[in-house]
Amino acid sequence: MAIGVKALPFSFVVHALGIAGAILVLVWCIHFRGGLAWESSNKNLIFNIHPVLILIGLIIIGGEAIISYKALPLKKEVKKLIHLVLHAIALILGIVGIYAAFKFHNESNIANLYSLHSWIGIGVISLYGIQWIYGFIVFFYPGGTAAIRRESLPWHVLFGSFVYVLAVGNAALGFLEKLTFLENSGLAKYGSEAFLVNFTAIVTILYGTFVILTALSQAPAEDDYSYTAI
Amino acid sequence: MAIGVKALPFSFVVHALGIAGAILVLVWCIHFRGGLAWESSNKNLIFNIHPVLILIGLIIIGGEAIISYKALPLKKEVKKLIHLVLHAIALILGIVGIYAAFKFHNESNIANLYSLHSWIGIGVISLYGIQWIYGFIVFFYPGGTAAIRRESLPWHVLFGSFVYVLAVGNAALGFLEKLTFLENSGLAKYGSEAFLVNFTAIVTILYGTFVILTALSQAPAEDDYSYTAI
Ligand code: HEM
Ligand code: HEM
Repeated sequence: MAIGVKALPFSFVVHALGIAGAILVLVWCIHFRGGLAWESSNKNLIFNIHPVLILIGLIIIGGEAIISYKALPLKKEVKKLIHLVLHAIALILGIVGIYAAFKFHNESNIANLYSLHSWIGIGVISLYGIQWIYGFIVFFYPGGTAAIRRESLPWHVLFGSFVYVLAVGNAALGFLEKLTFLENSGLAKYGSEAFLVNFTAIVTILYGTFVILTALSQAPAEDDYSYTAI
Repeated sequence: MAIGVKALPFSFVVHALGIAGAILVLVWCIHFRGGLAWESSNKNLIFNIHPVLILIGLIIIGGEAIISYKALPLKKEVKKLIHLVLHAIALILGIVGIYAAFKFHNESNIANLYSLHSWIGIGVISLYGIQWIYGFIVFFYPGGTAAIRRESLPWHVLFGSFVYVLAVGNAALGFLEKLTFLENSGLAKYGSEAFLVNFTAIVTILYGTFVILTALSQAPAEDDYSYTAI
């Protein structure tokens, strides 16, 4: 399903939407929700770490990791290193972000792991970790044989895209769930905060869409190193 | 991103998950939620039409429409007809299903179109309609020139997959939202109904995953008519 258009223009849209999404989630959690804290008697500040780290880490940095092969005018080996390091950062921020949600639940005596969002969240982070480890072993160190790499690459791309789409969808579930909680506690359904959260979710979905679109498009022509399996 | 495996086994998984999803949503809305009705003093019965028609129509019949080129041992022209008729049924059931949600809201004095789910829902059904009309005009009647068809096909596949993934994700948002409302009104977070709804959402996501996987795989070999652009 590779499409015959250049990836570079799409990758600029990715960067712009990523910056917009990061600003939106920070404005929401800091300005509207009171800020971020790891230890606090106001347990909501612990929760706020969750959307911030997950959106900026797992989704935005993870998206930049995915498009690194298409968005950077560098040698394949350099781009591979950027790809795996950015994914490692995304994974770690994702894990810390999930830890913050559990910490908030435990310190507020709220049940863990009852929601669709939390179940899919555990699935996403586990699959993301498995995908990272498999990719590291086969494509980086110690590295598989040429045949194993060739066989693995389309599945790496397919499975990676699947996990990423699931992550973006799960972020949308999280925004909707949190906003529904707030609205049930009296937040105005058509107020500015409600619109802000919904717009953040929509920017997140658009970001994910352009990440996949970039990945399906053609790498810069001057770059003879980029892979062509997609 | 076509993958070098046969589509047929995946298509069987699609049929099985589709039957499971249809049964699950019917058990939920009829057994746990009191049944379906177009006119009733119990407005919840009007709402129940929404998930039933949307899941069975837009998602399940729409998914079968997508895989018809890969799952059926028929001539291309016959499969094209099945593809467009199934999509028309999916679209109509989707529209009626959305109408039921508005009818429920209006008769219960609940605000319309405040949620992320409802916004994306309007986007999904509009894009689905546009995709259907464009496909009908270019690939069926009156039909575009060979050049227009060739140029359009990869975008038809890409845009169609995008809208379908958005529809599946929006169904997950709907299940989460409705269950959150019910839990806020006292439904047990770990009770059998909560698990049923979450499992229905997971079956829906798996169904969508296997629809896309089938679409990315190879059509049956004995079939020389199926398109190869994917
Ligand atoms: C892919 C991204 C995300 C993943 C993998 C993820 C993962 C998780 C997990 C595993 C939990 C369960 C914590 C527990 O049970 O104690 C959780 C809870 C929660 N998350 Fe996320 N999350 C993501 C994005 C978001 C975003 C962007 C928001 C927006 C506010 C959010 C809102 C929530 C809320 C409200 C809860 C508590 C209610 C619940 O357990 O469902 N999440 N998340
Ligand atoms: C792709 C599939 C779906 C689409 C396109 C869709 C579309 C819509 C739309 C447009 C509305 C707004 C009605 C109004 O504002 O009056 C709505 C409401 C609603 N839908 Fe869906 N729906 C889908 C699937 C589902 C599913 C599977 C459920 C599961 C129960 C669900 C639950 C709800 C709920 C609870 C509402 C009322 C709250 C709200 O407005 O968000 N939806 N839907």
